[in-house]
Amino acid sequence: MQRHVVVGRTAQLRTEKIPKFSTGLLGQGLITYRNKRYLLWQQAAHRMEIDGKSAGSLVEDAVVWANQHGLVVALKDPKFVNPDFAVIHAPLSLMPVPYPRGRFELAQQVMPLLNRLVDAVADDEGYLESTLGPAALYDTFTGRLLKTLQTTRSARSALRAAGKEVVLGIHRSDYMLDEPSGKFLQVELNTIASSFGCLSALMTQLHLYMASRLPALEPSRLPANPTLEHIPDAIAAAANSVGYREEGGVVVMVVQPGERNAYDQQWIQLGLWERHRLRTVRMTLGDIAATATLDKAQGGTVTLKTGEPVCVFYFRAGYTPADYPSEAEWAARELIEQSNAAKCPTVAYQLAGTKKIQQDLARPGILERFISDGRDAGLLREFFAGLWSLDPKDVATDPGVAAAVVDAIARPEAYVLKPQREGGGNNLYGEELREMLKVGGEQLSAYILMQRILPPANRSVLVRNGQWSESETLNELGIYGTFVRHGKNVLLNEQSGHLVRTKTSSSNEGGVAAGFAVLDSPYLVD
Amino acid sequence: MQRHVVVGRTAQLRTEKIPKFSTGLLGQGLITYRNKRYLLWQQAAHRMEIDGKSAGSLVEDAVVWANQHGLVVALKDPKFVNPDFAVIHAPLSLMPVPYPRGRFELAQQVMPLLNRLVDAVADDEGYLESTLGPAALYDTFTGRLLKTLQTTRSARSALRAAGKEVVLGIHRSDYMLDEPSGKFLQVELNTIASSFGCLSALMTQLHLYMASRLPALEPSRLPANPTLEHIPDAIAAAANSVGYREEGGVVVMVVQPGERNAYDQQWIQLGLWERHRLRTVRMTLGDIAATATLDKAQGGTVTLKTGEPVCVFYFRAGYTPADYPSEAEWAARELIEQSNAAKCPTVAYQLAGTKKIQQDLARPGILERFISDGRDAGLLREFFAGLWSLDPKDVATDPGVAAAVVDAIARPEAYVLKPQREGGGNNLYGEELREMLKVGGEQLSAYILMQRILPPANRSVLVRNGQWSESETLNELGIYGTFVRHGKNVLLNEQSGHLVRTKTSSSNEGGVAAGFAVLDSPYLVD
Repeated sequence: MQRHVVVGRTAQLRTEKIPKFSTGLLGQGLITYRNKRYLLWQQAAHRMEIDGKSAGSLVEDAVVWANQHGLVVALKDPKFVNPDFAVIHAPLSLMPVPYPRGRFELAQQVMPLLNRLVDAVADDEGYLESTLGPAALYDTFTGRLLKTLQTTRSARSALRAAGKEVVLGIHRSDYMLDEPSGKFLQVELNTIASSFGCLSALMTQLHLYMASRLPALEPSRLPANPTLEHIPDAIAAAANSVGYREEGGVVVMVVQPGERNAYDQQWIQLGLWERHRLRTVRMTLGDIAATATLDKAQGGTVTLKTGEPVCVFYFRAGYTPADYPSEAEWAARELIEQSNAAKCPTVAYQLAGTKKIQQDLARPGILERFISDGRDAGLLREFFAGLWSLDPKDVATDPGVAAAVVDAIARPEAYVLKPQREGGGNNLYGEELREMLKVGGEQLSAYILMQRILPPANRSVLVRNGQWSESETLNELGIYGTFVRHGKNVLLNEQSGHLVRTKTSSSNEGGVAAGFAVLDSPYLVD
Repeated sequence: MQRHVVVGRTAQLRTEKIPKFSTGLLGQGLITYRNKRYLLWQQAAHRMEIDGKSAGSLVEDAVVWANQHGLVVALKDPKFVNPDFAVIHAPLSLMPVPYPRGRFELAQQVMPLLNRLVDAVADDEGYLESTLGPAALYDTFTGRLLKTLQTTRSARSALRAAGKEVVLGIHRSDYMLDEPSGKFLQVELNTIASSFGCLSALMTQLHLYMASRLPALEPSRLPANPTLEHIPDAIAAAANSVGYREEGGVVVMVVQPGERNAYDQQWIQLGLWERHRLRTVRMTLGDIAATATLDKAQGGTVTLKTGEPVCVFYFRAGYTPADYPSEAEWAARELIEQSNAAKCPTVAYQLAGTKKIQQDLARPGILERFISDGRDAGLLREFFAGLWSLDPKDVATDPGVAAAVVDAIARPEAYVLKPQREGGGNNLYGEELREMLKVGGEQLSAYILMQRILPPANRSVLVRNGQWSESETLNELGIYGTFVRHGKNVLLNEQSGHLVRTKTSSSNEGGVAAGFAVLDSPYLVD
């Protein structure tokens, strides 16, 4: 195959206006934050060209490397007794994506702020209830989570009063680079089941291997990706704070049955064992309901049927109604919430990451309730896209909302309608968006109106299920954060690595596990 | 499943007689060799018991570990464009096999002697021709190799005369533990395509992981297994001696089409790249015939169609007639043999590893022609099983051979008839052996008569294609050796790691790739 393959940016990003809080030299696009200078100009596009034949050979080498290093997903072939036993390379991109170094490093810097923001918002249960209450009227899942929050409140208070509350956050803040402004704008903040942490670290290593093979790629431009260490270390820090290590305390990973992404989870399990001798037990909510017991109704120890106490409940499930097919699963969630184990996340942490909260925090003054330092709040706002509530009350009374709705009807291509339901699917664009807004009414409350982020076009070589293709793509960057607090002591508050997901420009949904996208990694250009 | 699983030896190995050259304390089973003392007593059997349910859970963990660390084989599922892209865990044994420490360490110690023996035997082409000539009458493959040896002799002499001969040996000497004598006795010596070096190192790491999970297994008893470093390092040492590194010299790995064991080979390729920045090109003999060129007919450089000179030809094919379907493949072998690249192996090295040579070296005085030091020869002979030629001449005139034939007819269970053809299959046992010997005649020359090694019974948990079973097993130990000589300088002569293959007691052929056996590792008991 003699096709010519081009990867990398083809358009030059525009230079950007200087944000208000810059103290750098005027006109040079500098920003100084916490005594560190970030250069925000984007100079040239970054292009690499490889011919089609070399691409095929590099793809084979990349796939073999992936299979040698556990950058894999289960094949789920029904002919094996255990479908996890056969694997195939994870969907991947051959070469990394160029990103502006200054903005990338700023996104890393801002993660500990986001970790603190989540903790502060989750701590204000009144705020969560008043902000999400209206949504609960039509979204029974959010409603049920709020109800769980209420019924378990006294257990939480008792734990706090005894100084035994251990809080564990493993978040991922997702951004896309917005070409007009040159900024990373937040797509969403994941506070539950933030996945691909481990496979993304392996992608970094794969691209380092690619850099050793291709002189055009400089290894120093592939930023370090410490997820494989940070994520197990945060879980272990929480487990050690809870205690029960000498009694054989375990981590329970709450999983979905038939999980295809199990290998990303298994790397965390291996890291917990090798780095901390902490054992992980995989259980569904149904398993927990059937076999786990809570010693005391309030702030007590959960014990498994096999006798081990549980130090940490780490959720890789529980974010979708499908994980709660009966009352038993909700009972399991309540049991977990009432226990003295660290929960990643608590119900409050899960609610703090919803799109409605994301939209509400963007309103003037609301973010500042939780982040009082003006510079910190200003830096966070650098990453916020335009977000507007579509509650009938806000549409009627808030001139900002009304103007946005009018503009969105006129220029639907600059907006997106997002349902509050987590898990992707059902975003509305273009004509569908315009129609929904024109019709209006109560049904609009199920959505958030958001500025559409316009990423620059990129070209990538995508490798899936043993086949490769070249295509124009869009890319989404996730930054991981880890946070552990024991009572009033913050033990750990880190930026913990990153993930890039790449999808063809034509598909509107970006979840890798859903089959539309591949794993990638960032390549920093000055 | 509540079955009770027992792994490990159930019978106590008998204490052994002191070998003649021992200088240790009489009656204590000591042997002193090169100033190191080896305790050869076998004290107690080593047993571990695990219940069936834990076995299932440990199997899952072992398989996931294997898939995370590249201890895999290609799935060869036809629905993928490239069948190598999906993989499954290599066939493996859950727990290591107990072996006596003294005898194991002695087998490691003897490997550099075997490396030197192969080099000395290969250097004596007259010996090879006179010993293998008769076999060539009925074995056309050996005959063709001998012919190739002759036609390429002048090229070899020219290289030697110019001091440019670079010799590379990567061998594996296979043993089974013989219960009656307590010794490791040599099954065969592999001097071409000695495989599983890399996967065996990963098995050692897997069993170290198992040892971290099971207190009954002590990690210190799993001997270090340096194949992943030694094999690429030996190839690189040979490549550096040949030269052409700055001209982009490559290693050609000579492979079979549709190789399922490619991942064991790929680890060598990755090691060559990561440790030495040496690139590997995979080619069949047919590819070489079609596209490689030899600069000069005698001792010249081989260049690939893409322009790179070849430093090393590393064979993972060429040991069976099936790899030479036409004259083109033989022409390729001659081209390789005449070139100035290092060949692993040369035709002479390949012939030095045949069963006929193994049998002839065991005759009194023959080994001593090549290993003149009496102690070294005595130590090597400790590892030789009884071997007898079945050439009609030897049957008629050698009383030792005649006696062995008579005894084998009377007690066939103590012998095995091995064809000289490499690659397994067609060994004769029991009644078939007796019949073949009674019939006698010219056809017997196709076989070697060998003492049957009687390994102690073992029990293992075998995991294949996603399923596990428990069974009585036999185990074969391979010790790897690496050897590099440039002209008269021996640059490297090492024991380079080990392999254990485990098969159910009922199957007579032990090749892992053939589907009858699994990979395992040794556990040293005192």
